[in-house]
Amino acid sequence: MDKVNINEKLSLFSDYGNQRVVGELNGQQVKLVKQKGEFIWHKHENEDELFFVIKGSFRMEFRDRTVVVNQNEFLIVPRGVEHKPVAEEEVSIMLFEPASTLNTGNVENELTRHVLDKI
Amino acid sequence: MDKVNINEKLSLFSDYGNQRVVGELNGQQVKLVKQKGEFIWHKHENEDELFFVIKGSFRMEFRDRTVVVNQNEFLIVPRGVEHKPVAEEEVSIMLFEPASTLNTGNVENELTRHVLDKI
Repeated sequence: MDKVNINEKLSLFSDYGNQRVVGELNGQQVKLVKQKGEFIWHKHENEDELFFVIKGSFRMEFRDRTVVVNQNEFLIVPRGVEHKPVAEEEVSIMLFEPASTLNTGNVENELTRHVLDKI
Repeated sequence: MDKVNINEKLSLFSDYGNQRVVGELNGQQVKLVKQKGEFIWHKHENEDELFFVIKGSFRMEFRDRTVVVNQNEFLIVPRGVEHKPVAEEEVSIMLFEPASTLNTGNVENELTRHVLDKI
């Protein structure tokens, strides 16, 4: 039951695309990630995902539209919906999603991370 | 799949202790609430609760200790643990918890809200 300071946790890492778990509750996890550049198209069959921008901005591409998400905004991507996050500049994102969520969803490649560090 | 701007949602209400639902995913809800003053001692038998401070600060009293939570910090209160939020000044909090969570937990009184507005 210790509080978590988001900026303090963000200061602990600088690599892109490597999610850290900073909280767990009700089978869900709170994760932090820094991203820059294009991620890959993927979807999650069984998990809805929430992306909350702590710093910076990014755009979420869907097959039929694009949503730009800025600081202090969040976007929920429902299960089954293909999406691709793209960040022109570094963005820091807090994720809320089931603990079972794999970062690359239905795609497995060199970006896939099965085990995440808890910080 | 529209994004949610936290500050815009917070500008839509000013009453204390009246949680608004601003997002839903995986059986969980994202809620916003403004609080000032003392809430009541209560606990949730089956739900862990996350309190993320958007603006201001508050203290969470437990039976054996107190945790001060400031802007950009969050605190997870596990199910079964008695707690009482106290805010000397107005605080804006984002909650992440199961949709089944009742604001006053195991206590029912005039502060209990069974139905929350979605904004």
